[in-house]
Amino acid sequence: MYFASDNNAGVHPDVLAALVAANDGHARSYGDDPVTARAHALFKAHFGEHAETVLAVTGTAANVIALASILRPYDAVLCADTAHVFADECNAPERFTGARLTAVPTADGRLTPAQVAGFAAGGHPPHAPRPRAVSIAQPTELGTVYTVEELRAIAGTAHEHGLLLHVDGARLANAAAALGTGLAEAAAGADVVSFGGTKNGALAADAVVFLDAELAAPRRYLHKQAMQLLSKARFTAAQFVALLSGELWRTNAENANRTASALAGILAGLPGVELAVPVQTNAVFAALPGPARAALDGYGSHSPGGAPVRFMTAFDTTDADIERFGTVLHAAFTR
Amino acid sequence: MYFASDNNAGVHPDVLAALVAANDGHARSYGDDPVTARAHALFKAHFGEHAETVLAVTGTAANVIALASILRPYDAVLCADTAHVFADECNAPERFTGARLTAVPTADGRLTPAQVAGFAAGGHPPHAPRPRAVSIAQPTELGTVYTVEELRAIAGTAHEHGLLLHVDGARLANAAAALGTGLAEAAAGADVVSFGGTKNGALAADAVVFLDAELAAPRRYLHKQAMQLLSKARFTAAQFVALLSGELWRTNAENANRTASALAGILAGLPGVELAVPVQTNAVFAALPGPARAALDGYGSHSPGGAPVRFMTAFDTTDADIERFGTVLHAAFTR
Amino acid sequence: MYFASDNNAGVHPDVLAALVAANDGHARSYGDDPVTARAHALFKAHFGEHAETVLAVTGTAANVIALASILRPYDAVLCADTAHVFADECNAPERFTGARLTAVPTADGRLTPAQVAGFAAGGHPPHAPRPRAVSIAQPTELGTVYTVEELRAIAGTAHEHGLLLHVDGARLANAAAALGTGLAEAAAGADVVSFGGTKNGALAADAVVFLDAELAAPRRYLHKQAMQLLSKARFTAAQFVALLSGELWRTNAENANRTASALAGILAGLPGVELAVPVQTNAVFAALPGPARAALDGYGSHSPGGAPVRFMTAFDTTDADIERFGTVLHAAFTR
Amino acid sequence: MYFASDNNAGVHPDVLAALVAANDGHARSYGDDPVTARAHALFKAHFGEHAETVLAVTGTAANVIALASILRPYDAVLCADTAHVFADECNAPERFTGARLTAVPTADGRLTPAQVAGFAAGGHPPHAPRPRAVSIAQPTELGTVYTVEELRAIAGTAHEHGLLLHVDGARLANAAAALGTGLAEAAAGADVVSFGGTKNGALAADAVVFLDAELAAPRRYLHKQAMQLLSKARFTAAQFVALLSGELWRTNAENANRTASALAGILAGLPGVELAVPVQTNAVFAALPGPARAALDGYGSHSPGGAPVRFMTAFDTTDADIERFGTVLHAAFTR
Repeated sequence: MYFASDNNAGVHPDVLAALVAANDGHARSYGDDPVTARAHALFKAHFGEHAETVLAVTGTAANVIALASILRPYDAVLCADTAHVFADECNAPERFTGARLTAVPTADGRLTPAQVAGFAAGGHPPHAPRPRAVSIAQPTELGTVYTVEELRAIAGTAHEHGLLLHVDGARLANAAAALGTGLAEAAAGADVVSFGGTKNGALAADAVVFLDAELAAPRRYLHKQAMQLLSKARFTAAQFVALLSGELWRTNAENANRTASALAGILAGLPGVELAVPVQTNAVFAALPGPARAALDGYGSHSPGGAPVRFMTAFDTTDADIERFGTVLHAAFTR
Repeated sequence: MYFASDNNAGVHPDVLAALVAANDGHARSYGDDPVTARAHALFKAHFGEHAETVLAVTGTAANVIALASILRPYDAVLCADTAHVFADECNAPERFTGARLTAVPTADGRLTPAQVAGFAAGGHPPHAPRPRAVSIAQPTELGTVYTVEELRAIAGTAHEHGLLLHVDGARLANAAAALGTGLAEAAAGADVVSFGGTKNGALAADAVVFLDAELAAPRRYLHKQAMQLLSKARFTAAQFVALLSGELWRTNAENANRTASALAGILAGLPGVELAVPVQTNAVFAALPGPARAALDGYGSHSPGGAPVRFMTAFDTTDADIERFGTVLHAAFTR
Repeated sequence: MYFASDNNAGVHPDVLAALVAANDGHARSYGDDPVTARAHALFKAHFGEHAETVLAVTGTAANVIALASILRPYDAVLCADTAHVFADECNAPERFTGARLTAVPTADGRLTPAQVAGFAAGGHPPHAPRPRAVSIAQPTELGTVYTVEELRAIAGTAHEHGLLLHVDGARLANAAAALGTGLAEAAAGADVVSFGGTKNGALAADAVVFLDAELAAPRRYLHKQAMQLLSKARFTAAQFVALLSGELWRTNAENANRTASALAGILAGLPGVELAVPVQTNAVFAALPGPARAALDGYGSHSPGGAPVRFMTAFDTTDADIERFGTVLHAAFTR
Repeated sequence: MYFASDNNAGVHPDVLAALVAANDGHARSYGDDPVTARAHALFKAHFGEHAETVLAVTGTAANVIALASILRPYDAVLCADTAHVFADECNAPERFTGARLTAVPTADGRLTPAQVAGFAAGGHPPHAPRPRAVSIAQPTELGTVYTVEELRAIAGTAHEHGLLLHVDGARLANAAAALGTGLAEAAAGADVVSFGGTKNGALAADAVVFLDAELAAPRRYLHKQAMQLLSKARFTAAQFVALLSGELWRTNAENANRTASALAGILAGLPGVELAVPVQTNAVFAALPGPARAALDGYGSHSPGGAPVRFMTAFDTTDADIERFGTVLHAAFTR
């Protein structure tokens, strides 16, 4: 029972069952199989008939493919300085695209239309790279969520200035659950979306959903070149089939969000604790008093310095887990 | 029952069981878990205590990481023109390393020490890239195998000229089974090995085994940057644990090799059929007379033109499969 | 008096005078100056009003910019295995574009429409890179020239198959002189041309001429990113003004071609000498008997082995130079 | 008479004379000539016998080669957010190296040892790139200068943490003139230096000076691959010979520094003007009142917004130029 990351969770039983069921004799490799076809169809059902998809096995890979479909090496893409693409992907986007990630500070992980407009106007070409795209995370790395209206405003400003919009939806299900919308609406205005299944209960399943035909055109090459074309593709696809064919994606996300909210409630009631940002999905960032912070080492994700500690819930976090952790928390505060 | 690729097979039941068993509650992500530790230990048991390993999910990714650990962008690496790194990875090695793959024709997929020496002496620096490494496949894409002595000769010539040796062992188990050796001996002299589990009965499990400390040093960065650091790493590791902790890797490889040999025997007895290269592992390349070739479309991997058709067996090919295919074959030849 | 390369020549006096004259007080930097404007206008005069140009200082840079405007990292470009882009640029095109150079053997340095068609049909996407472009040299590295009809046939086949055509015209003036055409006609059908001034009498002046608006669009970024945007741009431009505003480009090329022809005549008359390819511009490739070959070491460009020796003339080679070298040659053959 | 950039100046007569004198018949190409040998020897005379050098034609190219010798694609290099490598090179360093430029704000363009130490300690490998190097400009883009002691402190901290130090010396002569030191001392502690001749009176001459044997080893490949190996190399070398064989480099730098100081004196005396940073070399950054700022459009380098205007003097700025501009300035302030 520790809450450092939703990646610590395993695989939802239904997803695992689907994966096991896919092991049914021989099938054509490299995605030319019925399970993969079914997964593609499900993405179309969720994101629209024009949506084209490739499957990946890490969120970094999905982001790299998405960005590589947008960016030429002399381009720049705006992102928050907390964004996973900037902070947690070891330069993979730069190495793969050659382009610049222009990272800017934000109040709560969310970019604003004004930042987008400023970025579009900036630079002095060709000495600086060409402003070409905006990459936002939905939810953000801080767990905050753009409303559908906010998404449309960001997308509108971006498109108005000739910029494309990438949405890193490594936890898009959590955003949709929070917003009470479908997946597509939770990424409204996007030209390309990274969709994450792994944190939603899959074993290793991410996807790039292209909502623009021109961006989608070279997807099979990008997919292969980014080392994400698995020979036994059906097993990745099966995970998405399990998540997306019914409501499992939403149930899993709602469970994570709900338990995070419960955890936030407990934390907020403890003396000297401050939540760094509103808890809208499954991440809780809490500034803790020194002794409690030390006592809770190992229970959350501790950054160096006194930065807020991150606690994350997962698709499988139970009310009992939260209750038990509540006891741990109270103990840490009453030493 | 078709024989186009060993990738058409599913997952060996023991591997799948291990994967399912790994789904046991929460675990630290990104490889900091006991199953991954066990997999690393098994690679040391097979390749030596100095061996350092990172896990990947495609053979292309393993090759790219291996080559990226060796090559600077002004380097060239010698390979056969049939090599997977050259023919089937959509430039991923070039894109990721910047380096040149110098592909040369071979008799049977295997490079010779003389070709290595010629490569080392070639070029006119700095107009041509620096000869830096040799990449061989064991077995080759044609299914042929280097003997241990031949490996040592290649490695010796390479090292003498200051070149490093990469062994693409996407099917290394098949080579070891054919040679009757352990895995390390089947890649004797290598500085870095791509080891494939997928064709050996895994779902998606490849590895890069570094046998040189300097090459190994940046492996965690290369691993992450090549988009192969899975958050739920234990599930990849579990597949290797299943294959490598006992003799499953060998049993699976031997089965594939044995059934290929049986298939080759049948093919060789048919009128007008010629085996393009000796059948040493699980691939059979057979030149077929036109009508039979046409009749067998879909049963093997047909290249454009009249090139030999590739038939591959897998870890799960049964004697009954071969027998039944024998019937199909005879029918195709008696129309 | 040695003939290893036309790069051994210095600068034509008129070019140097123009460069010196450009040193006239202050001017706006980075190409926003009247001399650069004049150079751009001259390229339009030669290649058409739609031609857009950036200036570079090496032929490799011009080729890299041209190829980078065409190729995405998952692409392949067909070229002769003797091509400068493949043999003499130390992977710069691969490093800068990520793409593959598919190099094929030729009879005399020239590709054929059949090779282009074969290339377009080849590959098995997305395992192999996407056939995207053809790069030919005019004249070739062997000094041979495509006729205008041959160019049109290559371009026609390429375009028919959705491929773009790059012409490496490091010595385009020599081809135009040989064909008796203008510069544009000597690169008929090209989408983008590398035009070389250096071997034509300049100090260091190459250019990329874009004949397609879409390819031209990002040229300023490519130019800067390829490290070819000189602050004092007027001095490169001045060299082109000297060459292209009158007939100097043609006079210089004709002189080189004519003296090469004279040299070829002498060589062809010597016992045991064979010209490897017809002498059409300023390169002479001659297979020499061993003793003469040894005696002439230092006079031409000797490749390892017994390959034909390359002798090149330059814009400033005189009849007297040829005559004197004739004496040296005769001496080498009568030892 | 405008002061937007020292790049607006032409070429010093002595440099041009040396370039013209180098046009003396044929010479071996690609740097295998006596003038290039002389330039290399001069760099050894200035930077030490162990210094190895390659010549380039833009400062961006020199920086790219220098950084490419240091960085692997999974690395990060610390720099000021005003640094040319970050702000003015259109991603060329990222594209060529794959690495991250970690740009941080500074008070006056200069990094501090504390920033270096913080950078070295930062990151959470391998999710973030590996801190590998520090790149400082001497003088900075703001014209400020590190003292020799400050350089040693930066270098000491960097080396202590296993980081290498790159000094972008596009105007190193100006720093040395300001410090009253030699060139090497003005870059004390550096592992690799970009040395700029262009702003010091050359036409197009930059150099990479390697002070570390391991970094120097692949320099010829980097040089070629970065498209900086000019065939007629002697003409670049001749410019350095003119600057570095006597005191021309210092005389030119001193003139620029002195006239900038005079200009700063005038500006400082005008009502409402504030110098943004101390004037230590040949750049003057002055915050101007709105109407004067508008009136002076075209005389300096105006960034968007109300940012300080940059005025730069050059090797050829005369006292009379400053005096005349003083009149313009006074007029602009008395409207």
